[in-house]
Amino acid sequence: MIDKDMHTQHISQQFNSELDDIKTRMLEMGGLVERQVADAITAATTGDSGLAEKVLKGDSKVNTMEVAIDKECALILARRQPAASDLRMVLAISRALNDLERMGDEAKKIADHALGMMEAGDPPRAVAELRHIGTRVIAMVRDALDAFARLDVEQAVQVAREDKSVDLEYGTALRTLVTYMMEDPRSISSVLHVMWGLRSLERVGDHARNLAEHVIYLVRGMDVRHVPADDLEARLGDRR
Amino acid sequence: MIDKDMHTQHISQQFNSELDDIKTRMLEMGGLVERQVADAITAATTGDSGLAEKVLKGDSKVNTMEVAIDKECALILARRQPAASDLRMVLAISRALNDLERMGDEAKKIADHALGMMEAGDPPRAVAELRHIGTRVIAMVRDALDAFARLDVEQAVQVAREDKSVDLEYGTALRTLVTYMMEDPRSISSVLHVMWGLRSLERVGDHARNLAEHVIYLVRGMDVRHVPADDLEARLGDRR
Repeated sequence: MIDKDMHTQHISQQFNSELDDIKTRMLEMGGLVERQVADAITAATTGDSGLAEKVLKGDSKVNTMEVAIDKECALILARRQPAASDLRMVLAISRALNDLERMGDEAKKIADHALGMMEAGDPPRAVAELRHIGTRVIAMVRDALDAFARLDVEQAVQVAREDKSVDLEYGTALRTLVTYMMEDPRSISSVLHVMWGLRSLERVGDHARNLAEHVIYLVRGMDVRHVPADDLEARLGDRR
Repeated sequence: MIDKDMHTQHISQQFNSELDDIKTRMLEMGGLVERQVADAITAATTGDSGLAEKVLKGDSKVNTMEVAIDKECALILARRQPAASDLRMVLAISRALNDLERMGDEAKKIADHALGMMEAGDPPRAVAELRHIGTRVIAMVRDALDAFARLDVEQAVQVAREDKSVDLEYGTALRTLVTYMMEDPRSISSVLHVMWGLRSLERVGDHARNLAEHVIYLVRGMDVRHVPADDLEARLGDRR
């Protein structure tokens, strides 16, 4: 009996270390994606074409990581057949990979538009919007990854709230950019690149919110994907 | 022994019917999303504000279906602990739900921009681009769902190829729209709504390609998420 218990314990330790491993690798992928987004914004706001090219090249590494870690998730599901919170951990990581990969795609698009801006001629006023919202979105990505690392529901709710505020600011920035285009139609092409870049940033923010939702699913077992940020706290209730 | 076999057979039949059930419900959700996209395009190209409002209202039904069916997927994983192709079926359905929900979001955005176009004044030339690419993208969604229903790898590859061609056409349409804005700066607001609508359509096409990739994963066990359309056939090889 002791041997059997020890065997079970051994299996279970191995399983826990497999879970830790995919979580760590997902967070590493998250760190890389955060850097891609930050570099893409810097490239756009400083006109650094070399940095933009670096981001474009870096995307394939993000994709490779996604496929490799997701394969590991499917293997764990098949081999370990986890239940309850272990199952939620694997599913939450698999969903997070998807959001991270899409953030990486948006970073690539921002880098593309950074090159477009350099070609079309610098729209300095417009770029300020990109810098400002960029700083907020990068903080959201970092906070969402941090919430995942520490399974912090409170911080996850904070990210969802921040996303709503960024969306409002994004709407205002777009209206400002439209007036720039109308005032100076020759700037249309370059301002459009800023607009598309902003749009990608707004999408990165949405994916950071999704990451936060995966944390809530993982910790609480609740699917809050379509719950408005303002209702989240009430929905999570006293148990927080 | 006969009783035990019969019991096992019974469990397995029940399991198969559970798998069929989530697949059927996902395809029903797909049908609803396809209608949402088609209605949004019709609203934009005909200036039908009532239809646009209908699409906006219909999105919550899509979201409800996603959460309900995905919950069923997690329950099946926990209770049945499927392996091999059954596991791939559950994972492919869960991933497909995510893409369908995002297509639904894009349909909602197109409906929003349809209302914006009506408010900003009709840009009839620009709208032609929306109608044309819209027709192609709706066909892609239908074909991708069809490939999933019949587990048809050949058709899935066709959808991936079509996505590449639509992306090229999208790039051309954008350039055309920029010239419209430059020719008549008063049209900037309304042409921008068409541009955002086109952008959403292009995203719907990407998600249709994702659906096709899930079919290939399901049937072949191969993750082809970052394989270019032109390399797909070679990668799938003679076994097709």
